[in-house]
Amino acid sequence: MTIVSVYAVFADDEEAARIGRKMVEERFAACVNILDPCASIYRWEGQIETANEVPAVFKTGKETAAALVDRIAALHSYDTPCVVVWPVNRALPAYANWVCQSTGKET
Amino acid sequence: MTIVSVYAVFADDEEAARIGRKMVEERFAACVNILDPCASIYRWEGQIETANEVPAVFKTGKETAAALVDRIAALHSYDTPCVVVWPVNRALPAYANWVCQSTGKET
Amino acid sequence: MTIVSVYAVFADDEEAARIGRKMVEERFAACVNILDPCASIYRWEGQIETANEVPAVFKTGKETAAALVDRIAALHSYDTPCVVVWPVNRALPAYANWVCQSTGKET
Repeated sequence: MTIVSVYAVFADDEEAARIGRKMVEERFAACVNILDPCASIYRWEGQIETANEVPAVFKTGKETAAALVDRIAALHSYDTPCVVVWPVNRALPAYANWVCQSTGKET
Repeated sequence: MTIVSVYAVFADDEEAARIGRKMVEERFAACVNILDPCASIYRWEGQIETANEVPAVFKTGKETAAALVDRIAALHSYDTPCVVVWPVNRALPAYANWVCQSTGKET
Repeated sequence: MTIVSVYAVFADDEEAARIGRKMVEERFAACVNILDPCASIYRWEGQIETANEVPAVFKTGKETAAALVDRIAALHSYDTPCVVVWPVNRALPAYANWVCQSTGKET
């Protein structure tokens, strides 16, 4: 399949919307769904910590996934943000085409 | 693994619930989790657009995934909806069996 | 890739937080994002049922994924809970390292 999903977690709504919009503007992603805030529990420097964060699901081409991950990381407020690429086995061909045409270099 | 997850994004709660229920009734999916509304940012005809949409995660068998994607698309209000199949590497065997028995032809 | 995502659905917030925290404490997962409650529609013993449930996304190493699935199932209030492993094709190397160092045996 020519597209992938990218799951990323942001510090708050503002960061998710700012970086989300920039990824679409800069053609790193065709679309992003910014979900409602989530409650996170994680291990950091030996302690169990909690935080409210904002998860989002990006849609991009397989060819642009690596650049999307790196660009989100460069803009993100964390040093080591969660930005993971989930493979897509199947999608509607017209949808996949739209994602690929909306990302990468302008054709 | 014999099952997959299918991520789909709907125009609103009503559409997500209507199509979600139909997919379970018609045995295209064993279950659907309709998440809270999300804020979407996307590129459409050269413009950056925003919309509130409703994401959902369906659970179905590998054999019925293609039919589920096509059936959702046929009922969806968009011409090119986001309906993507995510592979599952592992699940509890009893859960996978339940998903497969709840989808496809009645045995 | 050395890490995976694990999507699990819990009966309510309390169960999601209790089991979620335990998985991080016991090093079965590095982190969990507990999403807002979702509306579920599913087939059970021939009937279409609905329920409010709580979905969560865990992050763990490939090596610990099977143990995480089994441990969640052992603690879960359902006999056959949805706990599915989603493959990750790419992540920031530093992030993947953190996930692996936060799971499995203490090094």
